[in-house]
Amino acid sequence: MLIPSEFDRLCVVLVSTRNPLNIGAAARAMSNLGFLRLRVVNPHEASFREARSAVGAAPLLQSAEQYKSVAEAVADCSLVIGTTAGHNRELHQPLKLLPQAASLIHKRLRSGRVALLFGSEKRGLSNSDLSYCHWLLRIPTREEHGSMNLGQAVAVCLYELARTASRGKRSKMPLKRETKGDGPVMAGELDRITALLLEALRASGYLEQRPVAAKEEKVRRMVRRLRLSTTDAEVWLGMLRQIAWKLRQK
Amino acid sequence: MLIPSEFDRLCVVLVSTRNPLNIGAAARAMSNLGFLRLRVVNPHEASFREARSAVGAAPLLQSAEQYKSVAEAVADCSLVIGTTAGHNRELHQPLKLLPQAASLIHKRLRSGRVALLFGSEKRGLSNSDLSYCHWLLRIPTREEHGSMNLGQAVAVCLYELARTASRGKRSKMPLKRETKGDGPVMAGELDRITALLLEALRASGYLEQRPVAAKEEKVRRMVRRLRLSTTDAEVWLGMLRQIAWKLRQK
Repeated sequence: MLIPSEFDRLCVVLVSTRNPLNIGAAARAMSNLGFLRLRVVNPHEASFREARSAVGAAPLLQSAEQYKSVAEAVADCSLVIGTTAGHNRELHQPLKLLPQAASLIHKRLRSGRVALLFGSEKRGLSNSDLSYCHWLLRIPTREEHGSMNLGQAVAVCLYELARTASRGKRSKMPLKRETKGDGPVMAGELDRITALLLEALRASGYLEQRPVAAKEEKVRRMVRRLRLSTTDAEVWLGMLRQIAWKLRQK
Repeated sequence: MLIPSEFDRLCVVLVSTRNPLNIGAAARAMSNLGFLRLRVVNPHEASFREARSAVGAAPLLQSAEQYKSVAEAVADCSLVIGTTAGHNRELHQPLKLLPQAASLIHKRLRSGRVALLFGSEKRGLSNSDLSYCHWLLRIPTREEHGSMNLGQAVAVCLYELARTASRGKRSKMPLKRETKGDGPVMAGELDRITALLLEALRASGYLEQRPVAAKEEKVRRMVRRLRLSTTDAEVWLGMLRQIAWKLRQK
């Protein structure tokens, strides 16, 4: 059932997790279901240390990569997905249910890395975290009680991905590519485009109104909606670099 | 997606659970995914009290039913399934993987109650617990790390049942019945047959060899493999009652 190379390209990213039991539980579910790449962003230091020293799933936690920001954690991924309970919240990105999401994830895993983001126990992913995501994923739960425990949400998502892995493999559908040799754009590249665009906007006075943070998130989401090819992304980078440079001169 | 009446006929049965966090986690996953019938067998008393007073999923825990034995907890169910990691253990019953198991469970849920048993964190279900089961269910996990956390296992099983519920409903396949009006046999009835058979065997000297417990479990499994119809079960009960009565006379 397992396709190691594809499983290895999925990164589970825990953002600002505070409870060591939950970090441990997420790691255990990953180990159970065969996904071994854990990345943690800005974890509560003592919690992460405690989780690392816990029994079971130790090798996976030992090799977990630690990052200071979501941007760094997903920089080498060409698809970034945020998990959310999706109720009582205004969402700015497309929302897909897990069974539908799984097949899209498998398609992308055939050629590149995918990041699956889980937020903190209390607040989930922030709007800032979500703005790095191409789209959002929800586990179908009851409306009356939508929010799942972190470790259980990780287990359910990975079960669905493991369950559908072999099916994805059998599919003979070729990947759609914009042009020959033109693959999906890494999140890091999108981030550089966003940064230059923001610099240009800031320098141009566009960002002078408050609140700036909300504006930045909007821009980040906007860039991700462009669905740039690698070639186009390079051109955009060049254009923005030039604009930003010009603006700095003034 | 939810079919309340069918969901209501599934009983999640936690056997000898010791950790209040795990009882709470199981209850939360149930509430998330829409399965609200929790039964607990012989829980650690303090743990169950603690779990009941925890935040979230409180109504479900308040209405949880408490039993002294597996036999009592599953007496009104016509299908009893034990969950197991399935590695490093000699199993005496058929083992099905979760995706396959889900469709069989849905078929039975259309007409009767189904019990899904989860064992204690340390040891899982005992051979005695398993002997009450018609078959066993395993979540497909890595061979190197098969044993899942209790709350996560509950979440994954219920996710799969919720996911496949609507598909089960669309199926036009009629239920196979032995004869007209002849439904599946309740676990309580099978238990009465087993008890009478054991009494007869004991009285006949058959059970004199040691260890008796293992023999009893074998008999229990054997009775469940008979796949009795309601009518046949009644006949069996009558026969065994007579035999046991006769043996008591001697």
